[in-house]
Amino acid sequence: MSKFWSPFVKDLVPYVPGEQPKLTKLVKLNTNENPYGPSPKALAAMQTELNDNLRLYPDPNSDVLKQAVARYYGVQANQVFLGNGSDEVLAHIFHGLLQHDKAVLFPDISYSFYPVYCGLYGIQYDAVPLDEQFQINPADYARPNGGVIFPNPNAPTGCLLALDAVEQILKASPDSVVVVDEAYIDFGGETAITLVDRYPNLLVTQTLSKSRSLAGLRVGLAVGHPDLIEALERIKNSFNSYPLDRLANVGGAAAFEDRDYFDKTCRLVIEHREWVVAQLEGKGFEVLPSAANFIFARHPQHDAAGLAAKLREQGVIVRHFKQERIAQFLRISIGTPEQNQALIEGLGNL
Amino acid sequence: MSKFWSPFVKDLVPYVPGEQPKLTKLVKLNTNENPYGPSPKALAAMQTELNDNLRLYPDPNSDVLKQAVARYYGVQANQVFLGNGSDEVLAHIFHGLLQHDKAVLFPDISYSFYPVYCGLYGIQYDAVPLDEQFQINPADYARPNGGVIFPNPNAPTGCLLALDAVEQILKASPDSVVVVDEAYIDFGGETAITLVDRYPNLLVTQTLSKSRSLAGLRVGLAVGHPDLIEALERIKNSFNSYPLDRLANVGGAAAFEDRDYFDKTCRLVIEHREWVVAQLEGKGFEVLPSAANFIFARHPQHDAAGLAAKLREQGVIVRHFKQERIAQFLRISIGTPEQNQALIEGLGNL
Repeated sequence: MSKFWSPFVKDLVPYVPGEQPKLTKLVKLNTNENPYGPSPKALAAMQTELNDNLRLYPDPNSDVLKQAVARYYGVQANQVFLGNGSDEVLAHIFHGLLQHDKAVLFPDISYSFYPVYCGLYGIQYDAVPLDEQFQINPADYARPNGGVIFPNPNAPTGCLLALDAVEQILKASPDSVVVVDEAYIDFGGETAITLVDRYPNLLVTQTLSKSRSLAGLRVGLAVGHPDLIEALERIKNSFNSYPLDRLANVGGAAAFEDRDYFDKTCRLVIEHREWVVAQLEGKGFEVLPSAANFIFARHPQHDAAGLAAKLREQGVIVRHFKQERIAQFLRISIGTPEQNQALIEGLGNL
Repeated sequence: MSKFWSPFVKDLVPYVPGEQPKLTKLVKLNTNENPYGPSPKALAAMQTELNDNLRLYPDPNSDVLKQAVARYYGVQANQVFLGNGSDEVLAHIFHGLLQHDKAVLFPDISYSFYPVYCGLYGIQYDAVPLDEQFQINPADYARPNGGVIFPNPNAPTGCLLALDAVEQILKASPDSVVVVDEAYIDFGGETAITLVDRYPNLLVTQTLSKSRSLAGLRVGLAVGHPDLIEALERIKNSFNSYPLDRLANVGGAAAFEDRDYFDKTCRLVIEHREWVVAQLEGKGFEVLPSAANFIFARHPQHDAAGLAAKLREQGVIVRHFKQERIAQFLRISIGTPEQNQALIEGLGNL
């Protein structure tokens, strides 16, 4: 530690993202990217924007993209917040809406960035254990708290919480913000955005990195009551006036407008997921029920770290977490049929 | 204020950026953008990257861009930090390096985002008055502090501090971080990056939004001792793993590599600035000596707000700040010869 650091910096334990290997030959099933490219209309919109006008600042309010999101979900533009990836959106949420006297609640097995944000902003939290089947039990969140956040479907389990269970959590904490982090919702769930007009404490986050195939562009969003959005705008405008560049603004808007491409690629990912699940179960894996673009699976006779290493030797990378309760699971992204085939072949006979 | 907000949110007074008008006919001299487009090589590099690979996350460490910056300045890659515009870089600096028991010092007339960051992170500050000629006096910073930050050239004055004066400030505060915010340095100053190996307390920030004509892409950077950079990396990796998208990584790197285009466009901006200064002085304006891509000027007989309104009627927008000490000044970006001509004609006979 250096004497120049702000005191809290020495205790930070940063998030570690999945590897982005520089070799291009690998079958990359470790960071839940979409196997299909972005909408051709999104690429075309960015193409048009790629010109001398990049010398000019973007619209600091990203009105075009906000309106595209608002139209898509049938909400008002002042119910939409945008950020440089949903990680930035989540950071501003922890800072601006979850810093209260009581602890924030989130599942013990969940997006591992949540405790990191708490460290960054000095927020206390309680990790609420998933049940024996790795499911969120709404009753466990019915206690005093400074906010609740969970991914739906949960990550890295892939398990979906039904909307009525989400409502149970919302009703039990009317004085706290409940954040439903829907990074993976389009692969088999129903969005809670339909509930934002009934629950002023509900904030739903989404990303364009998964179902809209734009991980490389960095766009995330939150939808909720205008009062919640205002807190986030205040933070954003005290942090960085222009978090979204000119290309992200138009590319993101075009991606939301191309419903056909979105529907088609989501459907394909779901189909391929069902194939991967059947193959893995055929090899003796236990696969948690997934509503995401990845599956979470363990084999009763084979060590997960060993399987991951074996796959890597054959050029297939998947994600393995060391956290004790899930140390025997692998998280495997759904790829193209060819990539999925490589995965199954790479596992060989077990 | 909503009960859901974190308590500090209600007291935030966000930064207000210069207007980004949606009308395209305006002569836009209000946000210090470059009148010339980005390097054609930067546009070509982004063109090559605009493809299906946008489905993949960017390199979280932006190695290619870090190496390009390191080569350009003759430093090591671990002395370079990158962010989503220099505003994000500055935010992380305030958070990670300027939060100490003593107050941060910056000029009273300076980048108006600095006090906003202090509000966001609960940092105390003292605004140190510029002298009568609107210059920074190094002796005024030789007192106990929790950090020092100033733009060089200063904004919105455009006035340059010589490197030996920067060194005086560095020597007087060996136990604090001294941040030299060089957003405009390429238009007539000498970078303090040449000093980073001698002063472990020096951090220099720059942006690609001004001299590299990429305001629309959002890339900023800091260069300093690896210990300072490590604090920023810890914050960044606890905030957002991937602040720079795939296009920004390659476009930024190509912009740094195209020295010829950079030299040529900087030289043109400087030439045009000298023309604008001569014209304004011919009309009776007092123009502060500028080393930036803008000038800061006042007219002894004409109210600044009135002049700004008059220009606006004629489709020319410039920036006017209400802060008392500079309320009679206009900040005017240097445009193309045609834009500068429109400015001078718009002022008419005074």
